[in-house]
Amino acid sequence: MDELKEDCGIFGIWNNPDAARLTYLGLYSLQHRGQESAGIAISDGSKLYSYKQMGLVNDVFNEHVLSLLHGRHAIGHVRYSTYGSSELRNAQPFAVEYKDGSLAIAHNGNIVNYETIRSRLEAEGSIFQSTMDTEVIVHLIAKSDGQTTHERLASALNELKGAYSIVLLTEKELIAARDPYGFRPLVIGELNGALVFASETCALDLIGARYIRDVLPGEMLVIGENSVRSYMFSTRVTRQSQCVFEHIYFARPDSIIFGKSVYSTRTAMGRILGIESPVEADMVLPIPDSGVPASIGFSQQTGIPFQMALIRNHYVGRTFIQPYQAIRNFNVKVKLNPISGVISGKRIVVIDDSIVRGTTSKTLVKMLRDAGAKEVHMRISSPPIDYSCYYGIDTPTRSELISSSHTVKEIEQFIGADSLKYLSIEGLRSVIGQDADNYCYACFTGDYPEPFELAKRDHQLILFDEGRLHGG
Amino acid sequence: MDELKEDCGIFGIWNNPDAARLTYLGLYSLQHRGQESAGIAISDGSKLYSYKQMGLVNDVFNEHVLSLLHGRHAIGHVRYSTYGSSELRNAQPFAVEYKDGSLAIAHNGNIVNYETIRSRLEAEGSIFQSTMDTEVIVHLIAKSDGQTTHERLASALNELKGAYSIVLLTEKELIAARDPYGFRPLVIGELNGALVFASETCALDLIGARYIRDVLPGEMLVIGENSVRSYMFSTRVTRQSQCVFEHIYFARPDSIIFGKSVYSTRTAMGRILGIESPVEADMVLPIPDSGVPASIGFSQQTGIPFQMALIRNHYVGRTFIQPYQAIRNFNVKVKLNPISGVISGKRIVVIDDSIVRGTTSKTLVKMLRDAGAKEVHMRISSPPIDYSCYYGIDTPTRSELISSSHTVKEIEQFIGADSLKYLSIEGLRSVIGQDADNYCYACFTGDYPEPFELAKRDHQLILFDEGRLHGG
Amino acid sequence: MDELKEDCGIFGIWNNPDAARLTYLGLYSLQHRGQESAGIAISDGSKLYSYKQMGLVNDVFNEHVLSLLHGRHAIGHVRYSTYGSSELRNAQPFAVEYKDGSLAIAHNGNIVNYETIRSRLEAEGSIFQSTMDTEVIVHLIAKSDGQTTHERLASALNELKGAYSIVLLTEKELIAARDPYGFRPLVIGELNGALVFASETCALDLIGARYIRDVLPGEMLVIGENSVRSYMFSTRVTRQSQCVFEHIYFARPDSIIFGKSVYSTRTAMGRILGIESPVEADMVLPIPDSGVPASIGFSQQTGIPFQMALIRNHYVGRTFIQPYQAIRNFNVKVKLNPISGVISGKRIVVIDDSIVRGTTSKTLVKMLRDAGAKEVHMRISSPPIDYSCYYGIDTPTRSELISSSHTVKEIEQFIGADSLKYLSIEGLRSVIGQDADNYCYACFTGDYPEPFELAKRDHQLILFDEGRLHGG
Amino acid sequence: MDELKEDCGIFGIWNNPDAARLTYLGLYSLQHRGQESAGIAISDGSKLYSYKQMGLVNDVFNEHVLSLLHGRHAIGHVRYSTYGSSELRNAQPFAVEYKDGSLAIAHNGNIVNYETIRSRLEAEGSIFQSTMDTEVIVHLIAKSDGQTTHERLASALNELKGAYSIVLLTEKELIAARDPYGFRPLVIGELNGALVFASETCALDLIGARYIRDVLPGEMLVIGENSVRSYMFSTRVTRQSQCVFEHIYFARPDSIIFGKSVYSTRTAMGRILGIESPVEADMVLPIPDSGVPASIGFSQQTGIPFQMALIRNHYVGRTFIQPYQAIRNFNVKVKLNPISGVISGKRIVVIDDSIVRGTTSKTLVKMLRDAGAKEVHMRISSPPIDYSCYYGIDTPTRSELISSSHTVKEIEQFIGADSLKYLSIEGLRSVIGQDADNYCYACFTGDYPEPFELAKRDHQLILFDEGRLHGG
Repeated sequence: MDELKEDCGIFGIWNNPDAARLTYLGLYSLQHRGQESAGIAISDGSKLYSYKQMGLVNDVFNEHVLSLLHGRHAIGHVRYSTYGSSELRNAQPFAVEYKDGSLAIAHNGNIVNYETIRSRLEAEGSIFQSTMDTEVIVHLIAKSDGQTTHERLASALNELKGAYSIVLLTEKELIAARDPYGFRPLVIGELNGALVFASETCALDLIGARYIRDVLPGEMLVIGENSVRSYMFSTRVTRQSQCVFEHIYFARPDSIIFGKSVYSTRTAMGRILGIESPVEADMVLPIPDSGVPASIGFSQQTGIPFQMALIRNHYVGRTFIQPYQAIRNFNVKVKLNPISGVISGKRIVVIDDSIVRGTTSKTLVKMLRDAGAKEVHMRISSPPIDYSCYYGIDTPTRSELISSSHTVKEIEQFIGADSLKYLSIEGLRSVIGQDADNYCYACFTGDYPEPFELAKRDHQLILFDEGRLHGG
Repeated sequence: MDELKEDCGIFGIWNNPDAARLTYLGLYSLQHRGQESAGIAISDGSKLYSYKQMGLVNDVFNEHVLSLLHGRHAIGHVRYSTYGSSELRNAQPFAVEYKDGSLAIAHNGNIVNYETIRSRLEAEGSIFQSTMDTEVIVHLIAKSDGQTTHERLASALNELKGAYSIVLLTEKELIAARDPYGFRPLVIGELNGALVFASETCALDLIGARYIRDVLPGEMLVIGENSVRSYMFSTRVTRQSQCVFEHIYFARPDSIIFGKSVYSTRTAMGRILGIESPVEADMVLPIPDSGVPASIGFSQQTGIPFQMALIRNHYVGRTFIQPYQAIRNFNVKVKLNPISGVISGKRIVVIDDSIVRGTTSKTLVKMLRDAGAKEVHMRISSPPIDYSCYYGIDTPTRSELISSSHTVKEIEQFIGADSLKYLSIEGLRSVIGQDADNYCYACFTGDYPEPFELAKRDHQLILFDEGRLHGG
Repeated sequence: MDELKEDCGIFGIWNNPDAARLTYLGLYSLQHRGQESAGIAISDGSKLYSYKQMGLVNDVFNEHVLSLLHGRHAIGHVRYSTYGSSELRNAQPFAVEYKDGSLAIAHNGNIVNYETIRSRLEAEGSIFQSTMDTEVIVHLIAKSDGQTTHERLASALNELKGAYSIVLLTEKELIAARDPYGFRPLVIGELNGALVFASETCALDLIGARYIRDVLPGEMLVIGENSVRSYMFSTRVTRQSQCVFEHIYFARPDSIIFGKSVYSTRTAMGRILGIESPVEADMVLPIPDSGVPASIGFSQQTGIPFQMALIRNHYVGRTFIQPYQAIRNFNVKVKLNPISGVISGKRIVVIDDSIVRGTTSKTLVKMLRDAGAKEVHMRISSPPIDYSCYYGIDTPTRSELISSSHTVKEIEQFIGADSLKYLSIEGLRSVIGQDADNYCYACFTGDYPEPFELAKRDHQLILFDEGRLHGG
Repeated sequence: MDELKEDCGIFGIWNNPDAARLTYLGLYSLQHRGQESAGIAISDGSKLYSYKQMGLVNDVFNEHVLSLLHGRHAIGHVRYSTYGSSELRNAQPFAVEYKDGSLAIAHNGNIVNYETIRSRLEAEGSIFQSTMDTEVIVHLIAKSDGQTTHERLASALNELKGAYSIVLLTEKELIAARDPYGFRPLVIGELNGALVFASETCALDLIGARYIRDVLPGEMLVIGENSVRSYMFSTRVTRQSQCVFEHIYFARPDSIIFGKSVYSTRTAMGRILGIESPVEADMVLPIPDSGVPASIGFSQQTGIPFQMALIRNHYVGRTFIQPYQAIRNFNVKVKLNPISGVISGKRIVVIDDSIVRGTTSKTLVKMLRDAGAKEVHMRISSPPIDYSCYYGIDTPTRSELISSSHTVKEIEQFIGADSLKYLSIEGLRSVIGQDADNYCYACFTGDYPEPFELAKRDHQLILFDEGRLHGG
């Protein structure tokens, strides 16, 4: 229920006269992956232009701005806001000039060895203007002695550990790449002869592009004037580790992610949950919108009627409202309102995709009881989250994850539900099916695909660009 | 499917130290009733303060603005944008000074004899600064020789024809009133001793207020320091004519409107529709979000599985996107994306609340067929709209309403559906139940509750306040 | 030295295809008369368009805005900010619709019986949306039973007491008028067949218009499609009372005001002052910029060398700086910096146009002594201000005027000057010359041209339009 | 007459609790040196904070912003807008993080070998985010193997050719330096134990600081917790080359520059001009404001009366007005208005500080003749500008300088003056006096202090940060 955040959506298009507008529409479809800032870089074949701003895609771009972004090749980015780095200098695409010309990059993921590389680069005399891990990629490219942009990029990427899907634009080329683990998605589409890249297929759908296939883990596609070349750039042997949480929560239900329909995997999760943990009840209630497909699956499996009796406020995304003590259950009620006429006196099964800290679920159960529910049974369409993610999902530290220190029974008591059940790992793997081994389940199991280091830099410089002021 | 617009939401609160913030939250809950402008007027017992701006509630108000709105008594307003009058001077509450002090008014509805009254007032020497019908109410109040504000307001309201729910604030009083027909809703709530008024109960829910009853048609409630008085102000005998479209489409499903749960009436409409016009099919698809309850009812009645396979873009409300010819089905696709993996090869029943011009439905059917649907059956949870509304709903002129000139069969062919069926008037009345005679069905029947005149004034003056420029 | 403020500059043009741009340039030339807000109303012969905003002319208008203001006839206004009414609703031109169509008015002056008229209008049921005296004029016009706009305006003006120069625009006519006393200036110009009106001739100069004559006290000029008619509208017998302070301080030195060159009258004031009150000194220092011409006259008369050794900060107008205690003489130093290398060890004559409260002069003398001046002699090119103005100049109340309660000797001691002398009334009248009787000297003599009433309304309503918040 | 532009003003303060506010006031005093952007970086002893924006000092900073800039040590910068680089990324102070922590730098001048250094750095793999020469200094610092910040800075500066005055701030130190030629000014002041640096002494005057001395050419002052150390960092032998144009035009007349009062040198220039090129005339007219002191000197020398009969529009700086063909002499008239009543029939001497392209002077002469001048004699208080400047003044290319291709007689004819005379080089040197050899006169003589290279980079990347769009 809106408790986990991913950090970005990316888009790219090569060879379309409407490149700026189509990138804008692609970003608009990917808005759920990042609401902090939006940006587009575009090439007219000889120059790069770049525009980015804090805000939603529709606030950042308008007819006037789009009309000034000339060119047939473009990349775009939407960024999610993590506290402390919500500044224009961290918006993307990140565009610079270096010896070989101009270059813009848009990045989704998390570079695990960012601090190590940055310290090494600083020791060699590099200066840094942002706090984004993306900036080190550009430094590595500029310092590589590769002969071509893609050789330089390959050399840079081979120094990185962690998760990244990338689109990169120069005056003459567009390059798309995905880390060898394949953590984050990146798909290839085609529209009237133009090549399109996007984090999710819903972006292809809106602009009418045809989904071709995913960029493969460890693959780099280099698009130039008359050529499309594919390279497997990785010098490491890795197992694929696609993020299963894209299917559980992040991706839009109308997208195909890692080759599978998100809507179908979610209804299947609800069905398996109905088999694993049935319950006597009068109705199944989804937490909108992420819980809807699993609820439909659960309802169909168990025969318990589906009701849409928690109403979501559509304007909630923009609210500045601080927790308001005087109003009971405020933090949930500002997003969801239960219809007490439907709920009152009934035994309810509520389906949510996950529990993070447990406090939101606790409020929700309280709110449902206030609305008259006789029994509240909670069913979670994923296993308990026991471990933090280091590959692009903004999970809290382990100690804040209620599952890391409490049994399911204890959580059930904490949130005040009559019963609480999670989908099992085996159930989840059965939903994924035959390529279940190609996914990362580290947030449930702690079995991270690679060892990592994570030192938190103590940032010294606080930039107040463009009127936004952020505390130290 | 987002084709009809209502013009406003109103809110009022008397005697709460957090009046500004609670009004803000109330307006935030009523945001679906108007997205053009938002405003609050507040009284600290001796002075009125007023703040209003173009934009969403969350864009207009912030901590700083709220902290400056001192007082225990407040009213608020959200306004929907009709073309040509999207200007700050038309935002509400409308606040003025006159012989008796200051006065602010927030109004939901449409004054049918506005032009007549305005012409008469102008002939007597009045000057006008807005193009809102609300302004005439204030002139009538100022010119009345009533001794008290509520006498003046009653005298003013008795000159009006049409639909209005009103909250009015002076330094010392808050007055709420509803036209004798009761077209537009207005409910009374209570929160820790404070009296609350709102267009819908969802606003009471968010702030934790208890729903007491509706303001009655023709009732005026006058709240002062130590008194709450109710007057039936109307000098005319009328039949109640509550707007049935609030139940079909406008109100939030979690609201109680005219004493009935909106969610329940909508699921009942779907159920009756399933009885009246069943069909062989593989799944029921709602047009989100307004079609969801009726789809659930239809699915439960017919046993055809419910699927949420049209995904709504949550950020659509703000988009400036012009019709984009190059993209097939763009006008609908920018709002909704069908999941072809679910739909492909299937017989679909699509449930929508209404058809206005027919073009949107036509695009929708085309889009579903493009997504692979084998059959597309359309079911509408209301009767055909044959007549324009003059009581606060922004219907197009009659000639633009496809039902006014086409049979259901012709519309079925126009939109390209395999079958099209509407809910019958009798079916709709049966959903409303025993007080079905107290509702207005004029948009379906042409049986308007009162005769009216509608002359379109040729406005001469175009004001470009605060940097917004609008053509002549 | 920037201590007195006037309230407005007005401009009008009839029959020029570039009316909007020329009005913009005219207002730009009149910017010294008002820096709070700027606005233009324009007629294309059938409709009025109006645009106004808080801010300087160049901030309010840009190419885009001007390109949307179509028409050949326009009026404009710049307004000076008095505390408490710095709101968009008080910006001008004030544009309304009434029975006869649309009407916009721009007004310079002060209606002395505003409160009386407003109370009477309110008693008759009028509502008010601004706190400007200008609004009553429009109400009076709308209520007049005159047959034509100019008859209605004449009837309205005859109810007013006080100072006003006015330009009024309807769809078909432009009317210019000046009160029968002629307090505030208003000139007529001609540009390629277009008629132009402006508060000062400097606005004619910039657009290349030729100065014809002043609008006469009590005259109304009515310009229509094919006619220019002049009416003497006043029903009262009055003596002319042109504001002598326009010559002393307000008007730009390059303007001709009331038929006389301001630069020439100011140098003459300095010369007479040099005759009346000579002094042994090493240099004459002007307070820039208003004191420059008088200083030149004083220097030429006395032979004491002129030096420009007080340097004005050109960006001072926009500063938000609050009095800053830690810095000595801050309130003057932020505007003026003395060149100590020039001043040090010297006997200085400083020429200023007036002394209001005395505190600024006191700081100035201190600052000059800090810069090393051996002697500081102050010469004021006007007589002592003993009385408040009620005719459009924002003088403080009488008790704040240092001259109203102190002798020149006492003021000399208060400000710390070695000597202080004012221009005599006789000296001032001799500068004005043969029509000296046609001027108002009430601020020096208390001999007001008409009796007046001044009740301060206790405003109840505080409007926070367009994001500007002002306290109660 | 406002035809030449310099590029910056800088300010620094060490050890004052009001550092942010005093820097703000210092920048406000230096506003004439740059109106495009303003910025402040501040250290609280352990962290650097930085805020910068496009706009005037008073638009960029307000109480809220200043209240958030905590610390006792600060630097600031105002920047002048050169076409094509008017973007936020080019605003200063330029702040980055590197291996040694954070660092902010503010720079006035022009690095002549910027392109060479940048190309070398890019070849080594550096990436660039701005088009400012300042950015290379920071790269050089980061790459230096010096042990301390000042060693690194010294090593960086020794690689630069050209003009620079610099203030640099780290968490723990403030460093001020001036290039070995001493092209641009930089003064040291003292305020209650705090050390202050500023481009001009007028900034010291406003905040009440005492002028101590100039930073010497080639000197670096390093201020730390308990120490102030001075180093002569330059490894090259150079002759001092202080910019004589600071005295002629750039600096404020109330400043002491290179140890001399600007007002005094300017009046002396006028006096020498009066000796070298007298003329029979009725009055001396200055071009305000830069021509005023020279006019006073000329008037005092020749006995011809001084008149201030060209009135400057104080609001001109912000105007967007494009050349407006329909108005005669528009480009000058929008800034200056001649008082024809004073000028008409008279023989005029006009004093200006310089002639660049000649077109402005030509318009000015025309405007004075239109105002009735019988004769117009032009006197220029500097020698003819024959060569472009590469040391921080934005002169046009040589071919655009009228003096580079025309004799004085030809220019006299071109501008239409009855006579035209320039101050001689010898006259100028005599004004400067005994240290005349320590100045740069290259714009008059072509005798540049060092050889230089100037290749124009073809920038590829166009960044549209924060909503500002600039063409390709």
